[in-house]
Amino acid sequence: MKRQFAKTALTLLFSTSIFMGIWAQSEDLQENTRAIEFPDIPGYVTLKCDLHMHTVLSDGNVWPSIRVQEAIRDGLDVISITDHIEYQPHKKDIPHPDRNRSYELALKAAEGSELLVIPGTEITRMMPPGHFNAIFVKDVNTLKQKDVMEVFREAKRQGAFVFWNHPHWTSQRPDGVATLTEMHHALLNEGLFAGIEIYNDNTYSKEALELAQKYNLTLLGNSDVHGLVDWSYEVPEGGHRPVTLVFAEEKSAEAMQKAMENRQTAVWFKNTLVGNQVFLTPMIEESLEVIHKSKGLVPSLQIHNHSDADYILENISAYSLHNFAPVFVLKAHEITTVQVKTLETLDSFELKFKVLNAYSEGDEHPEIKLLVE
Amino acid sequence: MKRQFAKTALTLLFSTSIFMGIWAQSEDLQENTRAIEFPDIPGYVTLKCDLHMHTVLSDGNVWPSIRVQEAIRDGLDVISITDHIEYQPHKKDIPHPDRNRSYELALKAAEGSELLVIPGTEITRMMPPGHFNAIFVKDVNTLKQKDVMEVFREAKRQGAFVFWNHPHWTSQRPDGVATLTEMHHALLNEGLFAGIEIYNDNTYSKEALELAQKYNLTLLGNSDVHGLVDWSYEVPEGGHRPVTLVFAEEKSAEAMQKAMENRQTAVWFKNTLVGNQVFLTPMIEESLEVIHKSKGLVPSLQIHNHSDADYILENISAYSLHNFAPVFVLKAHEITTVQVKTLETLDSFELKFKVLNAYSEGDEHPEIKLLVE
Amino acid sequence: MKRQFAKTALTLLFSTSIFMGIWAQSEDLQENTRAIEFPDIPGYVTLKCDLHMHTVLSDGNVWPSIRVQEAIRDGLDVISITDHIEYQPHKKDIPHPDRNRSYELALKAAEGSELLVIPGTEITRMMPPGHFNAIFVKDVNTLKQKDVMEVFREAKRQGAFVFWNHPHWTSQRPDGVATLTEMHHALLNEGLFAGIEIYNDNTYSKEALELAQKYNLTLLGNSDVHGLVDWSYEVPEGGHRPVTLVFAEEKSAEAMQKAMENRQTAVWFKNTLVGNQVFLTPMIEESLEVIHKSKGLVPSLQIHNHSDADYILENISAYSLHNFAPVFVLKAHEITTVQVKTLETLDSFELKFKVLNAYSEGDEHPEIKLLVE
Amino acid sequence: MKRQFAKTALTLLFSTSIFMGIWAQSEDLQENTRAIEFPDIPGYVTLKCDLHMHTVLSDGNVWPSIRVQEAIRDGLDVISITDHIEYQPHKKDIPHPDRNRSYELALKAAEGSELLVIPGTEITRMMPPGHFNAIFVKDVNTLKQKDVMEVFREAKRQGAFVFWNHPHWTSQRPDGVATLTEMHHALLNEGLFAGIEIYNDNTYSKEALELAQKYNLTLLGNSDVHGLVDWSYEVPEGGHRPVTLVFAEEKSAEAMQKAMENRQTAVWFKNTLVGNQVFLTPMIEESLEVIHKSKGLVPSLQIHNHSDADYILENISAYSLHNFAPVFVLKAHEITTVQVKTLETLDSFELKFKVLNAYSEGDEHPEIKLLVE
Repeated sequence: MKRQFAKTALTLLFSTSIFMGIWAQSEDLQENTRAIEFPDIPGYVTLKCDLHMHTVLSDGNVWPSIRVQEAIRDGLDVISITDHIEYQPHKKDIPHPDRNRSYELALKAAEGSELLVIPGTEITRMMPPGHFNAIFVKDVNTLKQKDVMEVFREAKRQGAFVFWNHPHWTSQRPDGVATLTEMHHALLNEGLFAGIEIYNDNTYSKEALELAQKYNLTLLGNSDVHGLVDWSYEVPEGGHRPVTLVFAEEKSAEAMQKAMENRQTAVWFKNTLVGNQVFLTPMIEESLEVIHKSKGLVPSLQIHNHSDADYILENISAYSLHNFAPVFVLKAHEITTVQVKTLETLDSFELKFKVLNAYSEGDEHPEIKLLVE
Repeated sequence: MKRQFAKTALTLLFSTSIFMGIWAQSEDLQENTRAIEFPDIPGYVTLKCDLHMHTVLSDGNVWPSIRVQEAIRDGLDVISITDHIEYQPHKKDIPHPDRNRSYELALKAAEGSELLVIPGTEITRMMPPGHFNAIFVKDVNTLKQKDVMEVFREAKRQGAFVFWNHPHWTSQRPDGVATLTEMHHALLNEGLFAGIEIYNDNTYSKEALELAQKYNLTLLGNSDVHGLVDWSYEVPEGGHRPVTLVFAEEKSAEAMQKAMENRQTAVWFKNTLVGNQVFLTPMIEESLEVIHKSKGLVPSLQIHNHSDADYILENISAYSLHNFAPVFVLKAHEITTVQVKTLETLDSFELKFKVLNAYSEGDEHPEIKLLVE
Repeated sequence: MKRQFAKTALTLLFSTSIFMGIWAQSEDLQENTRAIEFPDIPGYVTLKCDLHMHTVLSDGNVWPSIRVQEAIRDGLDVISITDHIEYQPHKKDIPHPDRNRSYELALKAAEGSELLVIPGTEITRMMPPGHFNAIFVKDVNTLKQKDVMEVFREAKRQGAFVFWNHPHWTSQRPDGVATLTEMHHALLNEGLFAGIEIYNDNTYSKEALELAQKYNLTLLGNSDVHGLVDWSYEVPEGGHRPVTLVFAEEKSAEAMQKAMENRQTAVWFKNTLVGNQVFLTPMIEESLEVIHKSKGLVPSLQIHNHSDADYILENISAYSLHNFAPVFVLKAHEITTVQVKTLETLDSFELKFKVLNAYSEGDEHPEIKLLVE
Repeated sequence: MKRQFAKTALTLLFSTSIFMGIWAQSEDLQENTRAIEFPDIPGYVTLKCDLHMHTVLSDGNVWPSIRVQEAIRDGLDVISITDHIEYQPHKKDIPHPDRNRSYELALKAAEGSELLVIPGTEITRMMPPGHFNAIFVKDVNTLKQKDVMEVFREAKRQGAFVFWNHPHWTSQRPDGVATLTEMHHALLNEGLFAGIEIYNDNTYSKEALELAQKYNLTLLGNSDVHGLVDWSYEVPEGGHRPVTLVFAEEKSAEAMQKAMENRQTAVWFKNTLVGNQVFLTPMIEESLEVIHKSKGLVPSLQIHNHSDADYILENISAYSLHNFAPVFVLKAHEITTVQVKTLETLDSFELKFKVLNAYSEGDEHPEIKLLVE
């Protein structure tokens, strides 16, 4: 039936000549239907970012141009190609030692698009300290140093933002539990890293979220893709890569770095949002547009969810619902009719929901308010 | 992916405030996405008609209101409920002898909609002559007569249009071959019937088409539905009931009857169109909108098929195609890009196709011309 | 891609001759793909029941045979056609006063199928007391009495099970809040009704659930369908009618009535289960088959959800998960891989989840345990 | 509804323990649901081959390992990576001159799979003679020569099979018409090439087919992919890359080369098959399994189409059909019920169809015979 709706929409667009201009737009959009969509919030743009990925220049399997095209198809605002400094299995074919090359090639491939490519690299060490990404770097080649602390210090000198990758990676932490070693404390004491991946590829770390809260680290979630995004995240079947949402004053590298330093992020993966509730709560509220359809003792609303998340809500309003149990779902990009037993006829009233598939630090579910008027 | 396109279309409609009015329209259309769609032709409207169906008033399983709702969902212009004169298996519960009752109930159910309900009934006899529908009748009750010829004469007196139902029905013709008996010739000689079903329910009769050509009979194809249209024709899976397309000067009972008497019809079933080529050929041409996208030695066209038919075309133009073999398909409601090897740069040129899934009388495929300019 | 998997499955079934027997089975199942599916529990069969529906014999729009076919397509075990005693808008066409007739016709239509049809009717009064269904009745005609208390007493004499329909219906309770009147207390005191609909058509009543708990009433949820189930519940788009799940010792009218009198029911609507937790909890546990795929510090499980519910789970185990946040979803009929951080290698361990889209009385979420070994 | 059938199939497979072994098989198949499927024919295996594609080693955008994974997902039997001898836009990063390297890397990536990787390269010259692929070569590096005739002679010395790529490519033939130049005649006279692409990427050449017939050239159709197969051919939406079907005595490089030299091929693109009718006709016949379901005057058959092609058939049997017009479609991987008017009860009979979406040389449609018994 979805097929049929698509048909309707097409018919609609085509049947009236005033839509000819729109149609061109629609063709472009058609390319972007897999785009990851979350709304901006007052004062901030919501940047969809994947800040961890690889190409043939280190141990990935595609040229940087494919990473750029995948990102454009996914509707991302920002990517960083973070090829390994210390690991190049394709060295026999790609022998040159220039670690800035992935960035250069991606930048060129992104020309003319709206995708922001920022320089980055992966510091690739045994645990401790494990793997870290440095983004907003000036020159990756100078990060190639023997002493690991010196690598981080050089990144700091370059003004980079540095975050710990997959602290729960079972290849480096067999029990999958993210914990700080002495070296991590040393790095923190010198201010040498400021963020942590709580989600990487397909894995989540509740313990990394606790460390982030305790040590004031910025939350990130990234793909770390080596093959094809479409295959790794089953995009055609409706899947998506994990992304870091950065709430920045504008879409620019500077604004983004400032936002990351201020911990203005959230992570989106497997229908779950985890993030700084100062930004996450209003973003969820912005996702939901409420239309007051009928007044009376049991008013009817239409709630249009403009985001990619199926929100799992628990009704904690003063009123019970006439057509849903207290836990219910507002599906992504759909309009859901909700009837509310207000007991008296009200011009305006407030609904309150706990969002069960969202977390802020302390593993708390954000509470959202919707004003109906 | 269709799901995702649907999403895009929605996003498109919602994201711009000028579409709010459209959206309301789209919601209505959404109800109608299963609508059977073929374009009008210059001077004529293309009426989608099902002129053979049953309700609980004879041997069907639904109230006439359901037949009306099914027709509205299917986007039909005209229906006739043709309950049997001589057969009422639900008589124990519905004992009254009023054979006009289905029409009255359907008419009331259709009030306020655009569906035209015309009076009709099924004359239900052993072979010969078998079953016939009389539509545009004045009073079905007076058709209840012992002598079969008298029934037809009374129908004629009432000004009815009478057609032979499923002449190939294996319950009455075990070999499935439609042929005329003496009684049929007698009926024809008195001008007592003028149409013939070449398609009924799920069955087709090539021989009925030949009879139609030989005896100047109007072509019809109808559902003869007793249960639910959605189940009988697997509508949710993309199926549809067979319909008679009537090319009338306007949407009215009078214009429709005149068109039927002039044999201005075609039949639509299982991705096949069979009909009077004077009307069928322009209807197929009207279905196809051609946009000249690029000029040059190998110009590129976009052909938008605005109909429900997947047209199977054979290229009989002066030019070969750069991206298709001579037989190819223009899918229903899709835009197909076609590249043509014109050998020189032309401002305008003509394409010519045989439509392999359409037939006019004599089992010929219609030939359509598309002017590209 | 689902389309393509269907193709694979077909190929699989067909390509090996030993599956020929299975295929026949599959064709039958194909008819039943919309079947509502929940597993039995130890000692009890889980009967899927719709105990509230109408036909042309009162104010519905279909013959009883269609109700039977809809139920078979929906995989129901039991239906009761509960045409109104006091309301027959089609009386002009169906004049006889026999209120047992719908049952007789449905019984005949169900012959040869596994569908159990039980006698029933709807007592249709102004509020108080409103509408009630009496099922397992002996003779509906003797329930046609002026005094409403006498109707209930006659139902009791016949050994019927009586339940209150849609106590929150806004046509009878404009604020939508289910509450008992004096007459309801009188009925309860005489033991004249024992059940209550907490869900009817598309509406839910949290307050009815509270009344059920306080007054020991059996929970029911039914369609109350008048038109077509496929249209009312958007079955082709993946919707389903609400049903009452009855946990009975066997599939028989007697066992079912006994189970209903013992309050052994749950209600299934809009991806929500509400019911008696003594039965609901094991049914959810039975839905989930756990396969221990890999051992080690972070063992991997495959959980196959054999039910129609997308279970929204909150992890309350002693262990955190390696690939999900604490709230996550096990989709209906899918296999989900779950990785568990057990910290040490265990031969067996227990997982514990709160089921957020299920409720037992007191609005509590059931807690389920899954033994992994 | 397809989704729901998938569910059923799953349920079927899982619900009975004897299917556990099958399930493992099904999981493998699930990976292969996009696999291109055509049956073998008596005495020959039908090899699905893509013999024209590029990687980062010339002007492609992926490492050879991705080409191998795409081919495995597409169910191909054979690929050849045919990077350009004379064109390496990524030379700055990949400077070594070893033109055998793509083959080596692909061979290693395919280890352990059933995919056959054969050595190949693209001779990349201005027109004339344009681009040619040489496959089954021994050493690509020695093909790097100034004189173009010498390149072909060296290929011949190595025992290569050489074919002309996209003779209708508008970059080299602005009118898109494939024709032979003097140099092509010279090459043919020396026996320096033996095949021709009639389909490349998304383009078809009717004129190339005519040349193939006139000069006894082997037909090929290949992707020539530079980006991702999934994107170029919209695989998730149901599209597929063009392939060359080679009818070989066994799946080996030797048997395949022999088959190609004997012109035992067909080309599959956009629901069209073009090829040598000695092999194409039996392959279509092998695709169709006929089950005689009922006897009598109008026997009913089930025809199961085991191939990826929607066959567009024209009935040229002695009998007309009871449920289809003379032109109808047998959908890929579906079972279609066909009723035949045999006029008398026959134990066995023959059906005859023209296949309108298939061509053999001379632009003739193959005729297939199906024996029903």
